Order: sequence, then structure tokens, then C-alpha cells
Amino acid sequence: MLSFKSGPENEAMSLVMYERIGSDGRRPSPFSWRIRYALAHKDIPVEFRTVRFADVETIRELSGQEKVPVITDSEKVVYDSWNIAVHLEEAFPNQPSLFGGVAGRAHARLVNHWSDTTLGPAIRRLISSAFILCLAPEDRDYFRRSREAAFGCTLEEYCAERPRWLAQVLAVIAPLEITLREQPYIGGMSATYADYIVFSALQYARLGCPEDFIEQGTAVRGWRDRLTDAFNGLGNLYPLHPQAAA
Amino acid sequence: MLSFKSGPENEAMSLVMYERIGSDGRRPSPFSWRIRYALAHKDIPVEFRTVRFADVETIRELSGQEKVPVITDSEKVVYDSWNIAVHLEEAFPNQPSLFGGVAGRAHARLVNHWSDTTLGPAIRRLISSAFILCLAPEDRDYFRRSREAAFGCTLEEYCAERPRWLAQVLAVIAPLEITLREQPYIGGMSATYADYIVFSALQYARLGCPEDFIEQGTAVRGWRDRLTDAFNGLGNLYPLHPQAAA
Repeated sequence: MLSFKSGPENEAMSLVMYERIGSDGRRPSPFSWRIRYALAHKDIPVEFRTVRFADVETIRELSGQEKVPVITDSEKVVYDSWNIAVHLEEAFPNQPSLFGGVAGRAHARLVNHWSDTTLGPAIRRLISSAFILCLAPEDRDYFRRSREAAFGCTLEEYCAERPRWLAQVLAVIAPLEITLREQPYIGGMSATYADYIVFSALQYARLGCPEDFIEQGTAVRGWRDRLTDAFNGLGNLYPLHPQAAA
Repeated sequence: MLSFKSGPENEAMSLVMYERIGSDGRRPSPFSWRIRYALAHKDIPVEFRTVRFADVETIRELSGQEKVPVITDSEKVVYDSWNIAVHLEEAFPNQPSLFGGVAGRAHARLVNHWSDTTLGPAIRRLISSAFILCLAPEDRDYFRRSREAAFGCTLEEYCAERPRWLAQVLAVIAPLEITLREQPYIGGMSATYADYIVFSALQYARLGCPEDFIEQGTAVRGWRDRLTDAFNGLGNLYPLHPQAAA
């Protein structure tokens, strides 16, 4: 069991975020990205600690469940990215708001579930067979075994009809494309946590396969690139897919 | 050309909403429903004027385009339901807010486009062959001709694979179901315009076909029924589908 010292004198360093790490320092997981952006948005100092993809025991010991990210804020352990975002909003009320008020937060929850139940799975269907190469070689057996059990087929079979799954992703993001032609961010004139949710799914796509299938000239591409560059180029802090064109 | 008198002395009655009417007074159009709820939410007095489904000329003469609803507020003519909602929010700032602030409004725009590009078309695919019976007999030829030209097949062919299109609608509303298990409204503890947008699509489904395919016991059904009952049972003001069970 890990324990953390805290107190007013070291409050600035009391926040720790645990996330999974891939090969050569890669960070392809969507849920970590949305929290990394939330932390940057609120300018909250944080210490990042990494766990391997196959290392579910460390996270289980810390939080009683297997999903990352997990944050520890003094003695408090928070998991599930939505709960973490809400915790950050409430624990740092004087920093820039992630949600822009009660209705903004409530509406963002629908965006969160839309991203997690519709957009994320559509991207996963498109990229899973390439995604495995983002992982450290010693984690790939775990990934293949657990995902193939869940999918009921090999990764390659799961992703075989690429044109079909690409069309599906583009159909899913159609409302996002129209929205971003009308306003620069999902949050309006500036980004909110709703932007970071959806961005994180597209970041998972951009880092998790060799091709960048969000076309230049689309509103989604412009928005994604602006967010990639935000916070001193936060979205480019880690390597692209190993097979990506240089 | 229609004209409208206005002035401070009759401000309360200066708002007129034009909407399409079906057989026996039916109102199956989704875009009118979301504005009806927005008007009720803000408690704005309004005079409703109806046009037949096939009567696009009246609306074109009034607004320069064919879609309903159209509202006239004194001399101002506003069309497109999103623009109307924004107009109501800005013209009646002292009435209850439809959006709950800047971020709430921006996030609601994504919900609006999700509803219009994803949920609405999925419902249309399921119900169009039944929907025609909601129209006055003299409007059905117009509806069939215009829709069959757009769909590239007969209404009956368009809706033939009912189990497939029903599964598609239920997949589309999956994020809504999860959201409404966690909070009573899309807007949080009370309804916002985001609720009325999505409700209006499900109202189109409920009134536009004989079957109520949103099952009892689901969070979406509970939410839809609460909104149907809201504002003195606004959602039940007009007849169900002619083939609906009594």
C-alpha cells in the first residue's frame, strides 16, 4: 500500500497522477489525455507516475480497481476520468473553470458518455490492430489476450474492414464537424473539459495508429491541431505511432 | 406579405410561431416541439399559427426559406430552431435561462447537431412509412413524393428492416441512457434547452409511429415521460399516431 505525505506546506506537490506508459515513453491512452489537459487548463502542479499496460496490480492496490488514470490528492484517491475532472473543479475553485457552470457540467456529461460509448469504440474498431505497436513489447501479449477475449476474434479480424470502420468514425464525428464550423471550441470561444474529452479520443486515434485520418481543412482537424499545440504543445509531448511517417 | 404591429403596449402578444399541422390537429414535427418547450420554459406568451405540410409557400413568403418553425417577434422574423432558441434567450433575459450560461449554450450546440445529424435520421429511418399517416390526407402525396426523391426508394423500402433500424436508434441513445441514470436531466437537476432538443426527437418518434419503442423502466423513458407531463402535460396536447393503441 502506498502512502502520501501532505499538508499546507507542500500542497502544490500533493497531486499525483498515475497513467499507463507504452513503448519509448508513449502515452496513447485517451483517458489520461483528458486529465492531462484538465490539469493544464487549471494550471495545477502534478507529479506523473507511470505504470506498464500489463501492470494492473499497482493500480488495483492503489484504488481498488484497474482503470487509469488515478489521481491521489493528499490522502484522497480518485479514479474514473469524469470523477477526477469533477474533483479538480471542486478542489481548485479559484483556477479557470473546466465546465463553465452547472449546466455546462451537466451537458458535458452527455458529451463524456457520447465520446466513451460511441466515438471511442468506433476509433477502437479502426485502430486496435495498429495500437498494439504503441505498447512495450513485454505488454503486447497481455493486450492481445485481453482484447481478443473481449472482441471474440483476433485484433486483425476485428479491424479488417478498414474502409467501413473509417466511414463509421467519420459519421460519428459529423455533428462535431458542424459544431466546430460554427464555434471554435465545443465550449464556445474557449475550450472546456468537453473539448478535452473529445480531443482525447482523437488523440488516442492520432497516436495509436500510423495514419492521420482527420483530413486537413476540416473544422475538426483545425480544432484538434489547435488543442495539440495548446499548453506549450502538450499534445506533442510524446512520440507518434512507431510506423507513422516522420 | 404578412405584417405585424408591435410596440411596448402589446409586447406580450407580439410573438407568433408558425408550425406545420397534421391530420386531426396533430403536431408531429420535432423542431416545433423543442421551441414549444423553450417558450413554456421561459413562460413567453405566444400565438400559434399553423400551416399545412405541403404549404411551403406561406413559410417561404414569410421567411425566405421553407423550414418551420418560424417565429416573428415584432418585425423580426427568425427561423432555424437553434436561432430561435438563442433569440428567445437573448430577447427575454429575465426569464429562466434555456442554456445556463455561455458554456452551457456552447455545449448544447453539439447536442443540437448530434440530435439533428445522428438521432433524428436514425428515428426517421425507423418511422417514415408510418409517419405519413399523421399528415392530412391531402398532404400525403407531397410528403411521399419529396421523401422518396430524397431517400431514393419508397417509404416502405426505406423502413423495411425494422429490427435493424430499431437497434440503430437504441445504439444512438445509449449515451443518453447512461447520462440520465446519473442525473435527472441533460441539464442536470432541471431541464435546459439541451433536454428539449433531444426530447423533441423522441416526441417525433412517439407521435410519428404507432409503437412506443422506448421501454418502460429505462432512464430515457422516465425522463421522456417527465418532460411529456411538464408544463401542464404539454407533450400530450395533441393526438397520438392514428394507429396507436388507445
